[in-house]
Amino acid sequence: MFRWKRMRGSITTMNTEHVPGDSGDAEETDRRAELSTPAVGRLSLYYRELHRLLASGETSTNSRDLGAMVNVSPAVVRRDLSSIGSIGRRGVGYDVAILAERIGAVLGSGVQWKAVLIGVGSLGNALLRYRGFERLGFSLAAAFDTDPAKYGHEVGGTTVRSLDDLEEVLSTAKPELAILAVPSEQASHVATRVLAGGIQGILNFAPTTLRVPSGTAIINVDLASELQQLAFRIQNR
Amino acid sequence: MFRWKRMRGSITTMNTEHVPGDSGDAEETDRRAELSTPAVGRLSLYYRELHRLLASGETSTNSRDLGAMVNVSPAVVRRDLSSIGSIGRRGVGYDVAILAERIGAVLGSGVQWKAVLIGVGSLGNALLRYRGFERLGFSLAAAFDTDPAKYGHEVGGTTVRSLDDLEEVLSTAKPELAILAVPSEQASHVATRVLAGGIQGILNFAPTTLRVPSGTAIINVDLASELQQLAFRIQNR
Repeated sequence: MFRWKRMRGSITTMNTEHVPGDSGDAEETDRRAELSTPAVGRLSLYYRELHRLLASGETSTNSRDLGAMVNVSPAVVRRDLSSIGSIGRRGVGYDVAILAERIGAVLGSGVQWKAVLIGVGSLGNALLRYRGFERLGFSLAAAFDTDPAKYGHEVGGTTVRSLDDLEEVLSTAKPELAILAVPSEQASHVATRVLAGGIQGILNFAPTTLRVPSGTAIINVDLASELQQLAFRIQNR
Repeated sequence: MFRWKRMRGSITTMNTEHVPGDSGDAEETDRRAELSTPAVGRLSLYYRELHRLLASGETSTNSRDLGAMVNVSPAVVRRDLSSIGSIGRRGVGYDVAILAERIGAVLGSGVQWKAVLIGVGSLGNALLRYRGFERLGFSLAAAFDTDPAKYGHEVGGTTVRSLDDLEEVLSTAKPELAILAVPSEQASHVATRVLAGGIQGILNFAPTTLRVPSGTAIINVDLASELQQLAFRIQNR
Protein backbone atom coordinates (compact mmCIF):
# COMPACT_ATOMS: atom_id res chain seq x y z
CA MET A 1 0.00 0.00 0.00
CA PHE A 2 1.15 3.52 -0.75
CA ARG A 3 1.59 5.73 2.26
CA TRP A 4 2.82 9.30 2.23
CA LYS A 5 4.57 10.89 5.13
CA ARG A 6 3.06 14.22 6.00
CA MET A 7 5.66 16.87 5.33
CA ARG A 8 3.66 19.99 4.69
CA GLY A 9 6.63 22.29 4.78
CA SER A 10 8.17 20.61 1.77
CA ILE A 11 5.50 21.72 -0.67
CA THR A 12 6.86 24.27 -3.12
CA THR A 13 4.46 26.92 -4.29
CA MET A 14 5.31 28.11 -7.77
CA ASN A 15 4.14 31.27 -9.31
CA THR A 16 2.85 30.72 -12.83
CA GLU A 17 -0.44 29.31 -14.18
CA HIS A 18 -1.97 31.48 -11.51
CA VAL A 19 -5.75 31.58 -11.41
CA PRO A 20 -7.22 35.08 -10.97
CA GLY A 21 -9.14 35.41 -7.76
CA ASP A 22 -6.96 33.01 -5.80
CA SER A 23 -4.63 34.62 -3.31
CA GLY A 24 -1.86 32.05 -3.74
CA ASP A 25 -1.59 31.66 0.03
CA ALA A 26 -0.15 28.19 0.68
CA GLU A 27 -1.48 27.60 4.20
CA GLU A 28 -4.01 24.90 3.49
CA THR A 29 -5.00 24.40 7.11
CA ASP A 30 -6.85 27.71 6.99
CA ARG A 31 -8.58 26.91 3.74
CA ARG A 32 -9.42 23.29 3.50
CA ALA A 33 -12.48 23.53 5.72
CA GLU A 34 -13.88 25.85 3.04
CA LEU A 35 -13.50 23.36 0.18
CA SER A 36 -16.86 22.51 -1.37
CA THR A 37 -18.06 18.92 -1.42
CA PRO A 38 -17.63 18.65 -5.22
CA ALA A 39 -14.09 20.06 -4.88
CA VAL A 40 -13.23 17.42 -2.26
CA GLY A 41 -14.65 14.77 -4.58
CA ARG A 42 -12.44 16.02 -7.43
CA LEU A 43 -9.35 16.13 -5.18
CA SER A 44 -10.05 12.51 -4.31
CA LEU A 45 -10.12 11.64 -8.02
CA TYR A 46 -6.91 13.58 -8.80
CA TYR A 47 -5.32 11.69 -5.92
CA ARG A 48 -6.38 8.35 -7.41
CA GLU A 49 -5.01 9.29 -10.84
CA LEU A 50 -1.74 10.63 -9.39
CA HIS A 51 -1.18 7.29 -7.68
CA ARG A 52 -1.74 5.55 -10.95
CA LEU A 53 0.83 7.84 -12.60
CA LEU A 54 3.31 7.17 -9.77
CA ALA A 55 2.79 3.42 -10.14
CA SER A 56 3.59 3.69 -13.84
CA GLY A 57 6.73 5.76 -13.20
CA GLU A 58 5.48 9.17 -14.33
CA THR A 59 7.09 12.10 -12.53
CA SER A 60 5.23 15.12 -13.87
CA THR A 61 1.76 16.01 -15.13
CA ASN A 62 -0.22 19.13 -16.01
CA SER A 63 -3.70 20.53 -15.59
CA ARG A 64 -4.75 19.49 -19.10
CA ASP A 65 -3.78 15.81 -18.69
CA LEU A 66 -5.07 15.62 -15.13
CA GLY A 67 -8.35 17.22 -16.23
CA ALA A 68 -8.71 14.72 -19.09
CA MET A 69 -8.24 11.85 -16.61
CA VAL A 70 -11.16 12.95 -14.45
CA ASN A 71 -13.32 14.69 -17.08
CA VAL A 72 -12.98 18.30 -15.92
CA SER A 73 -11.48 21.33 -17.64
CA PRO A 74 -7.83 22.37 -17.06
CA ALA A 75 -9.15 25.60 -15.48
CA VAL A 76 -11.07 23.64 -12.84
CA VAL A 77 -7.97 21.54 -12.08
CA ARG A 78 -5.84 24.67 -11.66
CA ARG A 79 -8.44 26.31 -9.41
CA ASP A 80 -8.80 23.19 -7.24
CA LEU A 81 -5.05 22.71 -6.86
CA SER A 82 -4.43 26.41 -6.31
CA SER A 83 -7.01 26.36 -3.53
CA ILE A 84 -4.84 23.88 -1.62
CA GLY A 85 -1.70 25.88 -2.35
CA SER A 86 -0.32 23.87 -5.28
CA ILE A 87 0.36 25.90 -8.38
CA GLY A 88 1.81 24.33 -11.53
CA ARG A 89 4.80 25.77 -13.37
CA ARG A 90 4.13 26.76 -16.96
CA GLY A 91 5.70 24.33 -19.41
CA VAL A 92 6.58 21.96 -16.55
CA GLY A 93 3.31 21.43 -14.72
CA TYR A 94 3.12 19.60 -11.43
CA ASP A 95 5.50 17.17 -9.77
CA VAL A 96 3.40 14.01 -9.40
CA ALA A 97 4.87 12.85 -6.06
CA ILE A 98 4.72 16.28 -4.42
CA LEU A 99 1.18 16.91 -5.64
CA ALA A 100 -0.01 13.45 -4.48
CA GLU A 101 1.49 14.10 -1.07
CA ARG A 102 -0.11 17.52 -0.88
CA ILE A 103 -3.59 16.29 -1.76
CA GLY A 104 -3.15 13.29 0.52
CA ALA A 105 -2.34 15.62 3.42
CA VAL A 106 -5.44 17.72 2.75
CA LEU A 107 -7.70 14.66 2.43
CA GLY A 108 -6.23 13.02 5.51
CA SER A 109 -4.97 10.04 3.57
CA GLY A 110 -1.83 9.78 5.68
CA VAL A 111 -4.17 8.88 8.53
CA GLN A 112 -5.22 5.26 9.13
CA TRP A 113 -9.00 5.15 9.57
CA LYS A 114 -10.86 2.28 11.17
CA ALA A 115 -14.34 1.35 9.99
CA VAL A 116 -17.01 -1.18 10.86
CA LEU A 117 -19.54 -2.53 8.41
CA ILE A 118 -23.09 -3.35 9.41
CA GLY A 119 -25.28 -5.59 7.29
CA VAL A 120 -23.62 -8.52 5.51
CA GLY A 121 -26.18 -9.06 2.75
CA SER A 122 -25.13 -9.11 -0.89
CA LEU A 123 -23.98 -5.47 -0.88
CA GLY A 124 -22.23 -5.84 2.50
CA ASN A 125 -20.50 -8.92 1.15
CA ALA A 126 -19.31 -7.01 -1.90
CA LEU A 127 -18.05 -4.13 0.26
CA LEU A 128 -16.11 -6.53 2.52
CA ARG A 129 -14.40 -8.02 -0.53
CA TYR A 130 -13.68 -4.62 -2.06
CA ARG A 131 -9.94 -3.89 -1.88
CA GLY A 132 -10.14 -0.20 -2.78
CA PHE A 133 -10.72 0.91 0.82
CA GLU A 134 -7.35 -0.38 2.09
CA ARG A 135 -5.52 1.42 -0.67
CA LEU A 136 -6.73 4.74 0.77
CA GLY A 137 -5.90 3.93 4.38
CA PHE A 138 -9.22 2.48 5.56
CA SER A 139 -9.25 -0.79 7.47
CA LEU A 140 -12.33 -2.79 8.43
CA ALA A 141 -12.25 -3.64 12.13
CA ALA A 142 -15.36 -5.82 12.13
CA ALA A 143 -18.60 -6.64 10.33
CA PHE A 144 -21.99 -7.23 11.94
CA ASP A 145 -25.19 -8.98 10.99
CA THR A 146 -28.29 -10.28 12.73
CA ASP A 147 -28.25 -13.70 11.02
CA PRO A 148 -26.62 -16.28 13.36
CA ALA A 149 -25.72 -18.42 10.32
CA LYS A 150 -23.19 -15.73 9.36
CA TYR A 151 -21.52 -15.28 12.76
CA GLY A 152 -17.86 -16.27 12.83
CA HIS A 153 -17.51 -16.42 9.05
CA GLU A 154 -14.71 -14.50 7.40
CA VAL A 155 -15.59 -12.39 4.37
CA GLY A 156 -12.72 -10.66 2.58
CA GLY A 157 -10.57 -11.01 5.69
CA THR A 158 -13.12 -9.55 8.12
CA THR A 159 -14.98 -11.69 10.65
CA VAL A 160 -18.77 -11.32 10.85
CA ARG A 161 -20.09 -10.90 14.39
CA SER A 162 -23.48 -10.62 16.03
CA LEU A 163 -24.97 -7.14 16.03
CA ASP A 164 -25.37 -7.69 19.79
CA ASP A 165 -21.57 -7.25 20.05
CA LEU A 166 -21.65 -3.84 18.33
CA GLU A 167 -21.27 -1.65 21.43
CA GLU A 168 -18.49 -3.82 22.84
CA VAL A 169 -16.48 -3.63 19.59
CA LEU A 170 -17.03 0.13 19.26
CA SER A 171 -15.74 0.73 22.77
CA THR A 172 -12.65 -1.48 22.40
CA ALA A 173 -11.58 -1.05 18.73
CA LYS A 174 -12.68 2.61 18.65
CA PRO A 175 -13.41 2.85 14.90
CA GLU A 176 -14.20 6.30 13.50
CA LEU A 177 -16.43 5.27 10.59
CA ALA A 178 -19.42 3.02 10.05
CA ILE A 179 -20.58 1.67 6.70
CA LEU A 180 -24.31 0.89 6.74
CA ALA A 181 -25.52 -1.75 4.29
CA VAL A 182 -28.68 -2.66 6.17
CA PRO A 183 -32.31 -2.58 4.93
CA SER A 184 -33.94 0.88 4.94
CA GLU A 185 -36.21 0.17 7.87
CA GLN A 186 -33.25 -0.70 10.13
CA ALA A 187 -30.94 2.11 9.05
CA SER A 188 -32.07 4.82 11.48
CA HIS A 189 -31.96 2.52 14.48
CA VAL A 190 -28.46 1.25 13.59
CA ALA A 191 -27.25 4.81 12.93
CA THR A 192 -28.42 5.88 16.38
CA ARG A 193 -26.54 2.97 17.97
CA VAL A 194 -23.24 3.59 16.17
CA LEU A 195 -23.34 7.32 16.91
CA ALA A 196 -24.03 6.60 20.58
CA GLY A 197 -21.01 4.27 20.47
CA GLY A 198 -18.67 7.05 19.33
CA ILE A 199 -18.73 6.67 15.53
CA GLN A 200 -17.94 10.02 13.89
CA GLY A 201 -19.02 9.44 10.31
CA ILE A 202 -21.45 7.20 8.42
CA LEU A 203 -21.37 5.99 4.83
CA ASN A 204 -24.98 4.96 4.25
CA PHE A 205 -26.02 2.62 1.44
CA ALA A 206 -29.57 2.13 2.71
CA PRO A 207 -31.92 3.93 0.28
CA THR A 208 -33.20 6.27 2.95
CA THR A 209 -31.93 9.57 4.28
CA LEU A 210 -30.92 9.14 7.91
CA ARG A 211 -32.08 11.68 10.45
CA VAL A 212 -28.99 12.27 12.53
CA PRO A 213 -27.92 15.12 14.82
CA SER A 214 -26.81 18.11 12.78
CA GLY A 215 -23.05 18.17 12.40
CA THR A 216 -22.81 14.39 12.00
CA ALA A 217 -20.66 13.56 8.99
CA ILE A 218 -22.74 11.40 6.71
CA ILE A 219 -22.58 10.46 3.05
CA ASN A 220 -25.51 8.69 1.41
CA VAL A 221 -24.97 6.49 -1.63
CA ASP A 222 -28.27 5.55 -3.26
CA LEU A 223 -27.52 3.28 -6.22
CA ALA A 224 -30.99 3.55 -7.75
CA SER A 225 -30.80 7.34 -7.51
CA GLU A 226 -27.51 7.31 -9.44
CA LEU A 227 -29.15 5.30 -12.22
CA GLN A 228 -32.09 7.72 -12.21
CA GLN A 229 -29.74 10.68 -12.62
CA LEU A 230 -28.11 8.88 -15.54
CA ALA A 231 -31.49 8.30 -17.19
CA PHE A 232 -32.31 11.98 -16.71
CA ARG A 233 -29.12 12.98 -18.50
CA ILE A 234 -29.89 10.70 -21.45
CA GLN A 235 -33.42 12.04 -21.73
CA ASN A 236 -32.27 15.65 -21.71
CA ARG A 237 -29.23 15.55 -23.95
CA MET B 1 -44.19 -1.47 -8.78
CA PHE B 2 -45.47 2.08 -8.82
CA ARG B 3 -45.95 3.57 -12.24
CA TRP B 4 -47.26 7.04 -12.98
CA LYS B 5 -49.04 7.98 -16.12
CA ARG B 6 -47.64 11.10 -17.66
CA MET B 7 -50.30 13.77 -17.55
CA ARG B 8 -48.41 17.01 -17.53
CA GLY B 9 -51.46 19.15 -18.12
CA SER B 10 -52.99 18.05 -14.83
CA ILE B 11 -50.37 19.72 -12.65
CA THR B 12 -51.79 22.67 -10.80
CA THR B 13 -49.50 25.60 -10.26
CA MET B 14 -50.39 27.48 -7.10
CA ASN B 15 -49.27 30.91 -6.24
CA THR B 16 -48.02 31.10 -2.68
CA GLU B 17 -44.71 30.13 -1.02
CA HIS B 18 -43.17 31.72 -4.08
CA VAL B 19 -39.39 31.84 -4.18
CA PRO B 20 -37.94 35.19 -5.32
CA GLY B 21 -36.03 34.90 -8.54
CA ASP B 22 -38.15 32.09 -9.93
CA SER B 23 -40.48 33.07 -12.73
CA GLY B 24 -43.19 30.59 -11.81
CA ASP B 25 -43.42 29.38 -15.40
CA ALA B 26 -44.76 25.83 -15.32
CA GLU B 27 -43.42 24.52 -18.63
CA GLU B 28 -40.81 22.09 -17.38
CA THR B 29 -39.78 20.87 -20.82
CA ASP B 30 -38.03 24.19 -21.38
CA ARG B 31 -36.32 24.14 -18.05
CA ARG B 32 -35.42 20.68 -17.03
CA ALA B 33 -32.34 20.51 -19.25
CA GLU B 34 -31.02 23.39 -17.13
CA LEU B 35 -31.37 21.57 -13.81
CA SER B 36 -28.01 21.18 -12.09
CA THR B 37 -26.71 17.70 -11.28
CA PRO B 38 -27.17 18.24 -7.52
CA ALA B 39 -30.75 19.44 -8.15
CA VAL B 40 -31.50 16.29 -10.14
CA GLY B 41 -30.03 14.24 -7.30
CA ARG B 42 -32.30 16.01 -4.80
CA LEU B 43 -35.37 15.54 -7.00
CA SER B 44 -34.55 11.84 -7.09
CA LEU B 45 -34.48 11.79 -3.28
CA TYR B 46 -37.77 13.74 -2.94
CA TYR B 47 -39.27 11.23 -5.35
CA ARG B 48 -38.12 8.34 -3.18
CA GLU B 49 -39.55 9.93 -0.03
CA LEU B 50 -42.85 10.84 -1.73
CA HIS B 51 -43.30 7.20 -2.69
CA ARG B 52 -42.70 6.20 0.88
CA LEU B 53 -45.36 8.72 1.99
CA LEU B 54 -47.79 7.37 -0.62
CA ALA B 55 -47.16 3.82 0.54
CA SER B 56 -48.02 4.84 4.10
CA GLY B 57 -51.19 6.63 3.02
CA GLU B 58 -50.06 10.25 3.41
CA THR B 59 -51.75 12.67 1.01
CA SER B 60 -49.99 15.96 1.68
CA THR B 61 -46.57 17.20 2.72
CA ASN B 62 -44.67 20.49 2.91
CA SER B 63 -41.23 21.88 2.22
CA ARG B 64 -40.19 21.64 5.86
CA ASP B 65 -41.02 17.94 6.24
CA LEU B 66 -39.72 17.03 2.80
CA GLY B 67 -36.50 18.91 3.55
CA ALA B 68 -36.09 17.11 6.87
CA MET B 69 -36.45 13.76 5.06
CA VAL B 70 -33.55 14.46 2.73
CA ASN B 71 -31.45 16.79 4.91
CA VAL B 72 -31.90 20.04 3.01
CA SER B 73 -33.51 23.33 4.04
CA PRO B 74 -37.17 24.11 3.25
CA ALA B 75 -35.94 26.96 1.03
CA VAL B 76 -33.94 24.54 -1.14
CA VAL B 77 -36.96 22.25 -1.43
CA ARG B 78 -39.18 25.15 -2.51
CA ARG B 79 -36.63 26.36 -5.05
CA ASP B 80 -36.14 22.85 -6.51
CA LEU B 81 -39.87 22.20 -6.78
CA SER B 82 -40.59 25.67 -8.10
CA SER B 83 -37.97 25.11 -10.82
CA ILE B 84 -40.07 22.21 -12.15
CA GLY B 85 -43.26 24.24 -11.87
CA SER B 86 -44.61 22.88 -8.58
CA ILE B 87 -45.40 25.49 -5.99
CA GLY B 88 -46.80 24.57 -2.58
CA ARG B 89 -49.84 26.26 -1.07
CA ARG B 90 -49.25 28.03 2.23
CA GLY B 91 -50.77 26.14 5.13
CA VAL B 92 -51.55 23.18 2.86
CA GLY B 93 -48.25 22.37 1.17
CA TYR B 94 -47.99 19.88 -1.65
CA ASP B 95 -50.28 17.06 -2.76
CA VAL B 96 -48.08 13.97 -2.45
CA ALA B 97 -49.49 12.10 -5.46
CA ILE B 98 -49.42 15.11 -7.79
CA LEU B 99 -45.91 16.07 -6.74
CA ALA B 100 -44.62 12.51 -7.14
CA GLU B 101 -46.11 12.37 -10.60
CA ARG B 102 -44.60 15.71 -11.53
CA ILE B 103 -41.09 14.79 -10.39
CA GLY B 104 -41.44 11.36 -11.98
CA ALA B 105 -42.29 12.99 -15.32
CA VAL B 106 -39.25 15.28 -15.09
CA LEU B 107 -36.92 12.43 -14.13
CA GLY B 108 -38.30 10.13 -16.80
CA SER B 109 -39.50 7.60 -14.25
CA GLY B 110 -42.59 6.79 -16.25
CA VAL B 111 -40.21 5.37 -18.85
CA GLN B 112 -39.09 1.74 -18.65
CA TRP B 113 -35.30 1.65 -19.06
CA LYS B 114 -33.36 -1.46 -20.02
CA ALA B 115 -29.86 -2.01 -18.67
CA VAL B 116 -27.13 -4.59 -18.98
CA LEU B 117 -24.56 -5.31 -16.30
CA ILE B 118 -20.99 -6.22 -17.11
CA GLY B 119 -18.72 -7.89 -14.56
CA VAL B 120 -20.32 -10.40 -12.19
CA GLY B 121 -17.73 -10.27 -9.39
CA SER B 122 -18.80 -9.55 -5.82
CA LEU B 123 -20.06 -6.03 -6.61
CA GLY B 124 -21.79 -7.17 -9.82
CA ASN B 125 -23.42 -9.95 -7.84
CA ALA B 126 -24.68 -7.45 -5.26
CA LEU B 127 -26.03 -5.16 -7.99
CA LEU B 128 -27.89 -8.04 -9.67
CA ARG B 129 -29.55 -8.90 -6.36
CA TYR B 130 -30.39 -5.26 -5.61
CA ARG B 131 -34.13 -4.69 -5.93
CA GLY B 132 -34.04 -0.88 -5.85
CA PHE B 133 -33.49 -0.56 -9.60
CA GLU B 134 -36.81 -2.19 -10.57
CA ARG B 135 -38.70 0.10 -8.26
CA LEU B 136 -37.59 3.07 -10.37
CA GLY B 137 -38.38 1.50 -13.72
CA PHE B 138 -35.04 -0.09 -14.57
CA SER B 139 -34.90 -3.71 -15.73
CA LEU B 140 -31.76 -5.77 -16.25
CA ALA B 141 -31.81 -7.41 -19.68
CA ALA B 142 -28.63 -9.45 -19.22
CA ALA B 143 -25.37 -9.75 -17.30
CA PHE B 144 -21.97 -10.58 -18.75
CA ASP B 145 -18.73 -11.99 -17.45
CA THR B 146 -15.57 -13.56 -18.88
CA ASP B 147 -15.53 -16.53 -16.47
CA PRO B 148 -17.07 -19.59 -18.19
CA ALA B 149 -17.92 -21.06 -14.77
CA LYS B 150 -20.53 -18.29 -14.39
CA TYR B 151 -22.22 -18.64 -17.80
CA GLY B 152 -25.84 -19.71 -17.64
CA HIS B 153 -26.19 -19.06 -13.92
CA GLU B 154 -29.04 -16.91 -12.72
CA VAL B 155 -28.24 -14.16 -10.23
CA GLY B 156 -31.14 -12.16 -8.84
CA GLY B 157 -33.28 -13.25 -11.79
CA THR B 158 -30.77 -12.26 -14.50
CA THR B 159 -28.84 -14.86 -16.51
CA VAL B 160 -25.07 -14.44 -16.80
CA ARG B 161 -23.73 -14.74 -20.34
CA SER B 162 -20.35 -14.74 -22.00
CA LEU B 163 -18.97 -11.29 -22.77
CA ASP B 164 -18.54 -12.62 -26.31
CA ASP B 165 -22.34 -12.36 -26.65
CA LEU B 166 -22.37 -8.66 -25.72
CA GLU B 167 -22.81 -7.20 -29.20
CA GLU B 168 -25.53 -9.72 -30.10
CA VAL B 169 -27.55 -8.87 -26.97
CA LEU B 170 -27.10 -5.12 -27.46
CA SER B 171 -28.40 -5.34 -31.02
CA THR B 172 -31.42 -7.50 -30.16
CA ALA B 173 -32.51 -6.34 -26.68
CA LYS B 174 -31.51 -2.69 -27.38
CA PRO B 175 -30.80 -1.63 -23.76
CA GLU B 176 -30.13 2.06 -23.17
CA LEU B 177 -27.89 1.75 -20.10
CA ALA B 178 -24.83 -0.24 -19.10
CA ILE B 179 -23.65 -0.81 -15.54
CA LEU B 180 -19.91 -1.47 -15.43
CA ALA B 181 -18.63 -3.48 -12.46
CA VAL B 182 -15.43 -4.69 -14.11
CA PRO B 183 -11.81 -4.23 -12.94
CA SER B 184 -10.29 -0.79 -13.69
CA GLU B 185 -7.98 -2.06 -16.41
CA GLN B 186 -10.91 -3.49 -18.42
CA ALA B 187 -13.30 -0.58 -17.96
CA SER B 188 -12.25 1.58 -20.91
CA HIS B 189 -12.28 -1.32 -23.35
CA VAL B 190 -15.73 -2.46 -22.19
CA ALA B 191 -17.04 1.12 -22.32
CA THR B 192 -15.90 1.45 -25.93
CA ARG B 193 -17.68 -1.80 -26.83
CA VAL B 194 -21.01 -0.90 -25.20
CA LEU B 195 -21.01 2.59 -26.74
CA ALA B 196 -20.29 1.10 -30.17
CA GLY B 197 -23.23 -1.24 -29.56
CA GLY B 198 -25.66 1.65 -29.02
CA ILE B 199 -25.60 2.12 -25.24
CA GLN B 200 -26.51 5.72 -24.36
CA GLY B 201 -25.42 5.97 -20.74
CA ILE B 202 -22.94 4.25 -18.43
CA LEU B 203 -23.01 3.84 -14.65
CA ASN B 204 -19.37 3.06 -13.88
CA PHE B 205 -18.27 1.41 -10.63
CA ALA B 206 -14.69 0.76 -11.77
CA PRO B 207 -12.41 3.12 -9.80
CA THR B 208 -11.20 4.87 -12.92
CA THR B 209 -12.56 7.78 -14.93
CA LEU B 210 -13.54 6.54 -18.37
CA ARG B 211 -12.46 8.50 -21.39
CA VAL B 212 -15.54 8.54 -23.56
CA PRO B 213 -16.68 10.80 -26.40
CA SER B 214 -17.91 14.13 -25.05
CA GLY B 215 -21.68 14.16 -24.68
CA THR B 216 -21.79 10.55 -23.48
CA ALA B 217 -23.91 10.31 -20.34
CA ILE B 218 -21.78 8.75 -17.66
CA ILE B 219 -21.91 8.61 -13.88
CA ASN B 220 -18.94 7.33 -11.90
CA VAL B 221 -19.45 5.82 -8.46
CA ASP B 222 -16.11 5.37 -6.67
CA LEU B 223 -16.80 3.77 -3.29
CA ALA B 224 -13.34 4.47 -1.88
CA SER B 225 -13.63 8.09 -2.92
CA GLU B 226 -16.93 8.39 -1.01
CA LEU B 227 -15.24 7.09 2.13
CA GLN B 228 -12.37 9.52 1.59
CA GLN B 229 -14.81 12.43 1.37
CA LEU B 230 -16.39 11.25 4.61
CA ALA B 231 -12.99 11.14 6.33
CA PHE B 232 -12.28 14.66 5.07
CA ARG B 233 -15.49 15.92 6.61
CA ILE B 234 -14.67 14.36 9.97
CA GLN B 235 -11.18 15.80 9.96
CA ASN B 236 -12.43 19.30 9.18
CA ARG B 237 -15.46 19.60 11.41
